Amino acid sequence: MGASVEEVIYKAIKALQQRDAGLAAAVVEGDGSIDELENRIDEECLKILALHQPVATDLRRIAAVLMINTDLERMADLAVDIAERAEVLAAPPRLAIPKELQRMADLTTVMVRDCLNAFVNLDARQARQVVRLDDEVDRLNADIIREIVAAMRQSADNVEPGLSLFSAVRHLERIADHATNIAEDVVYLVEGEIVRHRLEGSDA
Amino acid sequence: MGASVEEVIYKAIKALQQRDAGLAAAVVEGDGSIDELENRIDEECLKILALHQPVATDLRRIAAVLMINTDLERMADLAVDIAERAEVLAAPPRLAIPKELQRMADLTTVMVRDCLNAFVNLDARQARQVVRLDDEVDRLNADIIREIVAAMRQSADNVEPGLSLFSAVRHLERIADHATNIAEDVVYLVEGEIVRHRLEGSDA
Repeated sequence: MGASVEEVIYKAIKALQQRDAGLAAAVVEGDGSIDELENRIDEECLKILALHQPVATDLRRIAAVLMINTDLERMADLAVDIAERAEVLAAPPRLAIPKELQRMADLTTVMVRDCLNAFVNLDARQARQVVRLDDEVDRLNADIIREIVAAMRQSADNVEPGLSLFSAVRHLERIADHATNIAEDVVYLVEGEIVRHRLEGSDA
Repeated sequence: MGASVEEVIYKAIKALQQRDAGLAAAVVEGDGSIDELENRIDEECLKILALHQPVATDLRRIAAVLMINTDLERMADLAVDIAERAEVLAAPPRLAIPKELQRMADLTTVMVRDCLNAFVNLDARQARQVVRLDDEVDRLNADIIREIVAAMRQSADNVEPGLSLFSAVRHLERIADHATNIAEDVVYLVEGEIVRHRLEGSDA
């Protein structure tokens, strides 16, 4: 499921930047398979809980899978949301796409990959690095939105494509937030304490 | 936690509509207590799973609590996001707030209350009603966004407040989506099957 989610995010961003309406449509249509995977993983977890009644570390690991599964499915939904905006933005009038978007997309993809690696390897150090990367994504997000606002102020014709691009960038930022959630779940899993809200806003 | 989340949504919308920066700031500052509740509920669920090793119905109910808990916490986060936009929108330049927003906020509040009642009473019928209400919220959302776009096209000075209002309306729509998620979890809990993705987009 992690690999599928990474792929769908990659394709959605590519569709947005290359104004590829066909690729965007393919991302939108492909959503069902990830939803199905999410349901199967949930059912599998409940089966394991019921049949094996795991305790301690095993129980924490299953609980983490349930939470990560939810985050992954929402990330895929957000990628579909980006693809829907990409379909709109592929048509005229064309708005320039701020160059920082590529860096933001690259960082987000790294966060998605690394939070899942951190989970598989139970690597709290790597998970904390993912949390730190989110700060840079937030900075890029703010820069990009400033550029979009300037373009929208400049011409009324930029208002509608500007709103679409604004939405797409916000969706990308939320994908990075979900990767951060997963990374925090990994720290919790490894260190046995809930850090989700303590880490927020700090530079830990 | 349900009552706290309902209250914070109500206050955030009130702050937005009455341009009450003080109330908005209070909502933003109060977020920590709901985060703490979320962590306590998660820990409590894991303790129950570990100590009592519930099976069948009890197990499904605990799994539902874990999922609902995540949805509630995100709804509270979204209410805080709305309050942050309300702080911006309280200052000039003032943009007219579309009158449909009140109806959308009222419906969303009903959805939040009813999905939690449906959970407490294990009432699948009420849960399905919540899912249906989401269609009307989506329609109102589209109408409101059309009005915001028109205002932004009309004057460059409406661009920045327009973006803030657009974000606030989208956050409200997502709160309704989370209420829908909870309602779908209730149907699953009562009827023992996963309906999350099957119900989406249908009129069931």
